[in-house]
Amino acid sequence: MKWTTKITKVEPNHLVTRGYRQEDLIGNIPFPHVIYLLLKGGLPSKEHGRMMDAILTACIDHGVTPPSSIASRTVASGGVPLPTAVAAGILSIGDAHGGAIEKGAKFLQDGITCMNKEGKTAEEMAKILVKESKEKHKRILGFGHRVHTSDPRTKRLFSLANELNIAGDHIALSKAMERELEKSAGRKLPINVDGAIAAIISDMGFDWRLGKAFFLLGRVAGLTAHVYEEQTREKPMRKMFTVECEYDGPEERDIP
Amino acid sequence: MKWTTKITKVEPNHLVTRGYRQEDLIGNIPFPHVIYLLLKGGLPSKEHGRMMDAILTACIDHGVTPPSSIASRTVASGGVPLPTAVAAGILSIGDAHGGAIEKGAKFLQDGITCMNKEGKTAEEMAKILVKESKEKHKRILGFGHRVHTSDPRTKRLFSLANELNIAGDHIALSKAMERELEKSAGRKLPINVDGAIAAIISDMGFDWRLGKAFFLLGRVAGLTAHVYEEQTREKPMRKMFTVECEYDGPEERDIP
Amino acid sequence: MKWTTKITKVEPNHLVTRGYRQEDLIGNIPFPHVIYLLLKGGLPSKEHGRMMDAILTACIDHGVTPPSSIASRTVASGGVPLPTAVAAGILSIGDAHGGAIEKGAKFLQDGITCMNKEGKTAEEMAKILVKESKEKHKRILGFGHRVHTSDPRTKRLFSLANELNIAGDHIALSKAMERELEKSAGRKLPINVDGAIAAIISDMGFDWRLGKAFFLLGRVAGLTAHVYEEQTREKPMRKMFTVECEYDGPEERDIP
Amino acid sequence: MKWTTKITKVEPNHLVTRGYRQEDLIGNIPFPHVIYLLLKGGLPSKEHGRMMDAILTACIDHGVTPPSSIASRTVASGGVPLPTAVAAGILSIGDAHGGAIEKGAKFLQDGITCMNKEGKTAEEMAKILVKESKEKHKRILGFGHRVHTSDPRTKRLFSLANELNIAGDHIALSKAMERELEKSAGRKLPINVDGAIAAIISDMGFDWRLGKAFFLLGRVAGLTAHVYEEQTREKPMRKMFTVECEYDGPEERDIP
Repeated sequence: MKWTTKITKVEPNHLVTRGYRQEDLIGNIPFPHVIYLLLKGGLPSKEHGRMMDAILTACIDHGVTPPSSIASRTVASGGVPLPTAVAAGILSIGDAHGGAIEKGAKFLQDGITCMNKEGKTAEEMAKILVKESKEKHKRILGFGHRVHTSDPRTKRLFSLANELNIAGDHIALSKAMERELEKSAGRKLPINVDGAIAAIISDMGFDWRLGKAFFLLGRVAGLTAHVYEEQTREKPMRKMFTVECEYDGPEERDIP
Repeated sequence: MKWTTKITKVEPNHLVTRGYRQEDLIGNIPFPHVIYLLLKGGLPSKEHGRMMDAILTACIDHGVTPPSSIASRTVASGGVPLPTAVAAGILSIGDAHGGAIEKGAKFLQDGITCMNKEGKTAEEMAKILVKESKEKHKRILGFGHRVHTSDPRTKRLFSLANELNIAGDHIALSKAMERELEKSAGRKLPINVDGAIAAIISDMGFDWRLGKAFFLLGRVAGLTAHVYEEQTREKPMRKMFTVECEYDGPEERDIP
Repeated sequence: MKWTTKITKVEPNHLVTRGYRQEDLIGNIPFPHVIYLLLKGGLPSKEHGRMMDAILTACIDHGVTPPSSIASRTVASGGVPLPTAVAAGILSIGDAHGGAIEKGAKFLQDGITCMNKEGKTAEEMAKILVKESKEKHKRILGFGHRVHTSDPRTKRLFSLANELNIAGDHIALSKAMERELEKSAGRKLPINVDGAIAAIISDMGFDWRLGKAFFLLGRVAGLTAHVYEEQTREKPMRKMFTVECEYDGPEERDIP
Repeated sequence: MKWTTKITKVEPNHLVTRGYRQEDLIGNIPFPHVIYLLLKGGLPSKEHGRMMDAILTACIDHGVTPPSSIASRTVASGGVPLPTAVAAGILSIGDAHGGAIEKGAKFLQDGITCMNKEGKTAEEMAKILVKESKEKHKRILGFGHRVHTSDPRTKRLFSLANELNIAGDHIALSKAMERELEKSAGRKLPINVDGAIAAIISDMGFDWRLGKAFFLLGRVAGLTAHVYEEQTREKPMRKMFTVECEYDGPEERDIP
């Protein structure tokens, strides 16, 4: 019985992560580059490192209303340790919350594979994919947002990707999809921040299976701030919500 | 390196829990008695078994407003598997939510030890404890409730404990505390359901360290129902709360 | 903004779950019947109630080696509250651990729908399904076990289902599958405990989406016992495993 | 019913965190500085920012054997989404795993308050504290390590703290404690990495209640890498450990 790992070698007074001594990484390699190293196995180029840093910051927080913030603050309110409450927020990161990065990246990566095999342009591919999704009534993830019509994070991320020469096929396909969706729906359905990250990490060569990881690694910072704010500013078990409840179950009755 | 456990022996085609073959337990010993067996090491008397069953039912659910229900439903709303969402609710069971059973049981068990050592009556002991808590500004847990002034679950549990001849020193001390608190505060501060369970499990000989376990083992049933209702009746990422937000952090400013 | 729920109505001094006053349920209706009520909306027949009880006991514990026990005990070892550690174990209940109940129940329920539509016998249907799964290289879940060749829990559950007149189409299809798989594979691949529960809850009319819930609601009792044993019998951060580690990542190197 | 927060203001197309527009932070302010902003309310000086970055990297990973890695990988092995498995590891961050940062920081911060009030030197204060802990049989946290006698991370962090002019009273007290403990115990009991971080964040002016947050925010990167490695390199429900089990519960017996 043996555990094989490519992540860290631990010996007395000696810690080596992905080949690098931890004391060399500490304070010399920026933390977001170290995260890149952990996820990808090698240190990033200067450009990839800066993009990684930007993506993490783009995920930090969206106020008190997303499921993750509510879950973290609610659990904190039960009177538990900080990590327990932060973890509760992370549990809510799922197909419907942060999940569009994973699904969007898979969609784009499959799209590009197909596009290259069939020698199509991004525009042609986008047309095919939008048509297909319409016929199969499948929602394409990464477009539209419940709050923002022109998300400042998306613009900033795409402009950085251009500036850093990271923008490639996946971003191109993503933008072609946006145009095609507008034509098909008759209204703008802009790439959202999840969709932007999906396209950028795909152009950076990341496996779509890591999609939720980027969101998680940025959002955990905001969740920690929320839990700390809850624990230091509010009373335990405070009344958090005005929820008007309606019970529509069976009428009151006697047990048989 | 060896793991020693008193819980279950597993061999091919042979599972023995606390000495009993699982196939003998299944369908012959009621599940709440099996829980008692798991926590205490032996099967309960008929009376203890029935009390255990009643305690678990007394903890099943308190509607959609406690932290555990909100956490479970919110996390479910992120689009995750049922067990992930149920676990999120369990995480909120802490010192402020369900925690009065543990703290209340410790308080009563320490009180009885002291009472027996010093040869005092429950009334005398209660007087001392209420006085002490006043002087040290320590809240005594298990009395008063944010919603109920006369909790039907409490009444039912105490009446069962009497009927089943389980009521002993800890319940007596608990009731003496209630009378003493009323005198001291000038208003009724009734034993709540957590306090009732704390007293009853203490009279049943349970370790106070298991206090949160009783709440958890009953409540997990309600949380499962909430997650299932959320997953089958509501849309993912639904707007759950009308939360009027006020941002009172620093004014908007430019980065340096 | 309103929350609508069919589970529990909460008013001051008045708690009504699925129509029944909680004080009437407590100590009068067995806890496993109350779980049934929570999941299904109505109280079970005597037979369904007893079957429910048996299923929960069949899931209580499988010793220290399954992912859920290891996760719960490991997390407990970090020095956290009991519910945090129990929840960690529940998180591991997934497609590969307890998940065969959900997938198996869906498989059988789809199979029966198809069988009834096409007027086939269980034997004919089983033949079609095994052939299909072979052609599509899809594993059929609920058959075979990593430890048990003749699981005593399975036998007991099926014999109870017969005794209680619960066994119907889904169990029949499940047994036909077992025979067909043996013919097709040339060796016995017996229905495992997950598969048995999948068939039985399907014959009881439960939605397959609740598959993992049955496992969870039984196993949480065992996990609580494991966490309590860890917290009272072992030291925090104890060395739990002899894990021989092999680091096969990049050779030690200098940072650029 | 209103939620008041100092963290993030969310308006359509406008996200302001601690006063700064998110699009200004993204790609301009390093992510570790943004974490500092989230936890402390303002951006760090260049020196504090670099120290923050170094602390996070110092916490990233300690191989496959700590409770958090085992919990994350074990839960992943149950076949669940990546965030669920990462969260399980975070749950294990408790008083015994990463907890010495919180307790150590509280100890040092209380020590400095007392030292300043009584006008003592670090050496005098250390002598008093070690004597006290001996008399009360209280373990002082943050000294000694189960694997490392001279932890390379500790050395690196302290040398950076010096270089960046962050080292102040708390580090001085911590080092005086180390000398005093050696005298008192007759053997070296060096400050460990948790103890070093406790001292440094105290000199940076952080509340000890955030102690576990630093560990969590660094370790979540390593846990994500572990879960990804488990999900892409190993089979679900793989046999992870050679655990020799010994059942020492009651002898096998019949149910009554």
